[in-house]
Amino acid sequence: KGAVGLLIRSIGTDSHRLAHTGVGLSTTQIANDPAMQKRAIKLKDGSLIALTAVPAAALSNPDADQLERLLQLAQPVRVKLTIDSALGAEYTSYNVVGEVLGRELPDECVVIGGHLDSWDQGTGAIDDGAGVAITMAAAEIIAKAKQRPRRSIRVVAFANEEQGVFGGREYVRANAKVIHAGAAESDFGAARVYRFDYRVADRFFPAIQQIAGVLHVLDIEQGGNDAGGGADVGGLGAVGTPIFELQQDGSDYFNLHHTADDTLDKIDAKVLDQNVAAYVVLAYLAADAEQRMTAPEQ
Amino acid sequence: KGAVGLLIRSIGTDSHRLAHTGVGLSTTQIANDPAMQKRAIKLKDGSLIALTAVPAAALSNPDADQLERLLQLAQPVRVKLTIDSALGAEYTSYNVVGEVLGRELPDECVVIGGHLDSWDQGTGAIDDGAGVAITMAAAEIIAKAKQRPRRSIRVVAFANEEQGVFGGREYVRANAKVIHAGAAESDFGAARVYRFDYRVADRFFPAIQQIAGVLHVLDIEQGGNDAGGGADVGGLGAVGTPIFELQQDGSDYFNLHHTADDTLDKIDAKVLDQNVAAYVVLAYLAADAEQRMTAPEQ
Repeated sequence: KGAVGLLIRSIGTDSHRLAHTGVGLSTTQIANDPAMQKRAIKLKDGSLIALTAVPAAALSNPDADQLERLLQLAQPVRVKLTIDSALGAEYTSYNVVGEVLGRELPDECVVIGGHLDSWDQGTGAIDDGAGVAITMAAAEIIAKAKQRPRRSIRVVAFANEEQGVFGGREYVRANAKVIHAGAAESDFGAARVYRFDYRVADRFFPAIQQIAGVLHVLDIEQGGNDAGGGADVGGLGAVGTPIFELQQDGSDYFNLHHTADDTLDKIDAKVLDQNVAAYVVLAYLAADAEQRMTAPEQ
Repeated sequence: KGAVGLLIRSIGTDSHRLAHTGVGLSTTQIANDPAMQKRAIKLKDGSLIALTAVPAAALSNPDADQLERLLQLAQPVRVKLTIDSALGAEYTSYNVVGEVLGRELPDECVVIGGHLDSWDQGTGAIDDGAGVAITMAAAEIIAKAKQRPRRSIRVVAFANEEQGVFGGREYVRANAKVIHAGAAESDFGAARVYRFDYRVADRFFPAIQQIAGVLHVLDIEQGGNDAGGGADVGGLGAVGTPIFELQQDGSDYFNLHHTADDTLDKIDAKVLDQNVAAYVVLAYLAADAEQRMTAPEQ
């Protein structure tokens, strides 16, 4: 007979009695699997979401250790799962978009942002309050600068990233005609940025070198021309937008993310300042480039 | 009007969403306060225990931070306390005592031990499973030694330390006629021992130097003649028993103790070995001393 339940060790690096949550099935997985599509629920916008076929839950690492010790006794082990999560009613949430208009080409924009939603156990300080705060703060500094960059800077606080990048996908759909001069998201906590990655056509390397040179002052090294873009702006990359990534130190990210420990006390304001400064540099210089950067030719 | 509830920040050094538990009122506090005695409940053995006059609870540090931020907004803050703890029925638990009989003076003994009970959130690995394990393991090694020490070694797993040292107090009462040649408890987690303290009459310093000399091999330094003895053996000290203390590194103790995080994964077996070795040295040499040590004259 098939499984009656699924119990996993949390995908986390901590040793606390706090389980990590998350989704069982991504929208991408569903799109690639006809069997999942059959079980999936179609939302009003045509998106498919799916519940796992069996009740699923995650144990904290110490609890998984304990279960392993019990199993090693080679006696029958009985686990009672009481799970009260369920798919609620469908509702509409919104991307929140703000713009600092460019001085010469206001219809072209560089997107920076994070996502608005978070899992329910914590307060979402690092996933992804920090990303929204960093990119909003960077745009505010640019808005107050003596001279604005040539192009606009658009800060997007994406809706519902966690359950399947709903906001990120809708942003791409709704802004298909907008000329995007670049996109970068902050969605890996609040630790310091250590590397600058990018994905642009080779002829824009001089502009990249200029950005990298200024980021170097913030102790950020230059990476390579292979940035992926993350969940929310990855879709913009897929339709030809140049992608930038300010890689953050993730040493403690998987101690905290998707747990009750994702709270404001985990954030160091000084380190957040370094992130904000890095986004100011990146967004300003990308938006101010003499020639609009484009993605590598396919 | 008086307080309707008591909400405190956990007495802990961690930054996790796990509150620290504990007792509100100690038996010592009750003994010294007639008002508390009036509210106290008398147990069958004559002990008094007390409930706080108002419902009391502890917040984790991140939650206390959040409450402080809310209070700083200078808006009314309402907290709903749902507390389902209660004083249950009185029951009898037991000290568990084992002895390694001495080869010459089996009626005289050195007590080592920890306490059996723990708070309910965690599994009590560091408070105080480790202490019971360390002292039992030390006694087992001594029991298997080629030559036993002159006096007996008694391992005591004390009952109900957490709610008011019930086992420790009963041990003193029930063993008033036993000749104790020393007492040491392990009740501060499972980290390495760094210092050896003691409380003996000055004329026994040569015997102390001998013990300290061997402990030095385990990277344990010699402390002073001012050991307190801890909760469970402190009572033996108060009636004239020489006290020894193997002080442990407590850097992470108050991250874990009395929380759900008090679990076995927090214990390093190699470090536990150093503790066991230290108790072997201390218990063996104290029990084998040519002249039985006694406490300082009052």
